[in-house]
Amino acid sequence: MDMHDLTRELQLANDSKIVMFVADGLGGLPMSPGGKTELETAVVPNLANLAKRGVQGASIPVKPGIAPGSGPGHLGLFGYDPLKYQIGRGALEATGIGFELRDGDVAIRCNFCTLDSSGNISDRRAGRISSEDSAPIAISLRQIKIPGIEIFVEPVKEHRFVVVFRGEGLGGNVADTDPQRTGVPPLDPVANDPASQKTAAVAKEFLTQAKKILAGQPKANFHTMRGFANKPALPSYGEVYGLKSAAIAVYPMYKGLARLVGMEIVGKAQTLSEQIDTLEQSWKDYDFFFIHFKYTDSTGEDGNFTEKVKRIEELDGILPRIEKLNPTVLIVTGDHSTPSFLQSHSWHPVPTLLVSDCCRPDPHVAFNESTCITGGLGHFEAQYLMTLAMANAGRLGKFGA
Amino acid sequence: MDMHDLTRELQLANDSKIVMFVADGLGGLPMSPGGKTELETAVVPNLANLAKRGVQGASIPVKPGIAPGSGPGHLGLFGYDPLKYQIGRGALEATGIGFELRDGDVAIRCNFCTLDSSGNISDRRAGRISSEDSAPIAISLRQIKIPGIEIFVEPVKEHRFVVVFRGEGLGGNVADTDPQRTGVPPLDPVANDPASQKTAAVAKEFLTQAKKILAGQPKANFHTMRGFANKPALPSYGEVYGLKSAAIAVYPMYKGLARLVGMEIVGKAQTLSEQIDTLEQSWKDYDFFFIHFKYTDSTGEDGNFTEKVKRIEELDGILPRIEKLNPTVLIVTGDHSTPSFLQSHSWHPVPTLLVSDCCRPDPHVAFNESTCITGGLGHFEAQYLMTLAMANAGRLGKFGA
Repeated sequence: MDMHDLTRELQLANDSKIVMFVADGLGGLPMSPGGKTELETAVVPNLANLAKRGVQGASIPVKPGIAPGSGPGHLGLFGYDPLKYQIGRGALEATGIGFELRDGDVAIRCNFCTLDSSGNISDRRAGRISSEDSAPIAISLRQIKIPGIEIFVEPVKEHRFVVVFRGEGLGGNVADTDPQRTGVPPLDPVANDPASQKTAAVAKEFLTQAKKILAGQPKANFHTMRGFANKPALPSYGEVYGLKSAAIAVYPMYKGLARLVGMEIVGKAQTLSEQIDTLEQSWKDYDFFFIHFKYTDSTGEDGNFTEKVKRIEELDGILPRIEKLNPTVLIVTGDHSTPSFLQSHSWHPVPTLLVSDCCRPDPHVAFNESTCITGGLGHFEAQYLMTLAMANAGRLGKFGA
Repeated sequence: MDMHDLTRELQLANDSKIVMFVADGLGGLPMSPGGKTELETAVVPNLANLAKRGVQGASIPVKPGIAPGSGPGHLGLFGYDPLKYQIGRGALEATGIGFELRDGDVAIRCNFCTLDSSGNISDRRAGRISSEDSAPIAISLRQIKIPGIEIFVEPVKEHRFVVVFRGEGLGGNVADTDPQRTGVPPLDPVANDPASQKTAAVAKEFLTQAKKILAGQPKANFHTMRGFANKPALPSYGEVYGLKSAAIAVYPMYKGLARLVGMEIVGKAQTLSEQIDTLEQSWKDYDFFFIHFKYTDSTGEDGNFTEKVKRIEELDGILPRIEKLNPTVLIVTGDHSTPSFLQSHSWHPVPTLLVSDCCRPDPHVAFNESTCITGGLGHFEAQYLMTLAMANAGRLGKFGA
């Protein structure tokens, strides 16, 4: 029996509203021994007020020591065991550019490359061709036709593009055609299981036609295919939690991840303030709101401590607008830590705050990496945050008599 | 997907050095209500300094309430789920005396016993015969020959000795021959599965020959066989972590446990100071060092609170020598608690300290049973310590994109 078996059985309907505010990469580190983290440095009076009313804890994104990408980081927060539900590379790439995968689709990451006169790869990334140059070349591949298969080709960035095959009986388990080195020809697409043989044959035909189309291209006369993946089979928020849920995000990746679990993408906000406008406008229409704030992660990735502090203060500043809507449960968390000190995602537990009328507040009057480790939620795996949210919203019945 | 699937996929190579200092049975208890534990009583300025720079937590050896033996205690620290990987009794006994088991070997714990004139057991432990008396009798069994089988007989202590069978197709699942009571004859060795039938036949032949050899022995005219076990199939440190690892231990049991996970046994140190000599001498040759310090356990087992305090101070005293080597990650922990108050291994979480440049220090300035429970590592199962060590050493890539 997993957590979703429990929530399927115990879910209750009511008028509660749950807001999960995800500050991507929220957790940080001091830049020097004895120093403060970004969150400890920021002036965050609204978070402090919430800390007084709420309960906090340290969320472990996957398992101790494991730094997650955006996919497993968000699946955990959404209540999906990130070791059980894995999103294939191709499916994540398609998700990241806003492509709406359907059940049965196979998505593939493609890299433009260059072949020499012998047909051996001379550059696996086509000299990191510019996006301006590569996009029209990718789009030229839309002329490829394969009977019975709907084909989508979407430019991504530089040498990268995505191909999606839609049709009957397309398994996603096909080996990469990138040999991972130069001086050798690309590999043929080979099925790793019987259910993927048709996919491999379709990919081979695609590559044959692509080779002809690209033959005259000086900058990118061929491409490889990697990370074949079906759309992941994730049970939906509606089914596992009984929640009508909305995602309010700016970046395609996070809209895509939310869509994979059955959330509706709401609004077209480009700023945090516009995201809260959208929240206000759609407040009556949903039970659950996922708000994604990107810049605590991107500033951390850039190693820009000062800018990350400012972004944390920006999010603190809009909290009163959310509180004014009087959510039954308000959660502030992150999908992982992105310390400016490391300039990367990290494994460190994420400060997580939950406020509700029945949350059993802990004694903390601030909210950061130092306080969360002794908070009332303890140290917990992110995948358990959703049952805590549901419980605090009165949306979970008793287990057993 | 288990933790080793993750570490196999995510492991990175670099020049980092990880030192895991295991003070066996480190955790303790007060001797009277309101008192201090051994670690709280000890004067440990070096541990306090490390606490200021590091992050601490409470390590649960197996699961809450479960007191482990040395086998599961160390497997947990080494990152092997101790409920998944179990070392059979015979294999552990052989390991404990320094016998190097090979794949496919079957190890058996044997007890000398006495039979009366009817062939019934009159004493299951041969009157706890002295080691001096029993060793030559055990060695006399080395004359037993069985075609196709290499046989090893090793004295242990008092009535105990170990037999190892080496040959083709020897399963380890054979029932004990000790009937667990006197006044009845020993049982025949019976295979519990088809793969162990040959082992049972070999054991029966061994017992037949042993009965003849021992017939004239007044103190021990027969023996029982218990805990049949193959060498456990543990994936190696090199494979699961990509670490070249060294074990610096004094006692055969800990060398043996380290060898089972593929560590190399380094040096012939007999004292803690000599162990650190070995560490210094082999510093360039390995990525990971397991240092085992026995006396925090043995003093606890003896109920000698004062001596355990002294041993803790001894280990504190050598820490500067380890720090001088500038390890990337330094961990001080124990495989379980051995409170002098209980004179035995216990289930209490073990104070555990991790120091690295990116460990996110917690506010603690001391290190003991009281501080560790509110440390930044939280309460965690020992099996996750290795991923934390690897992450802090920069040896784990990101999980998912």
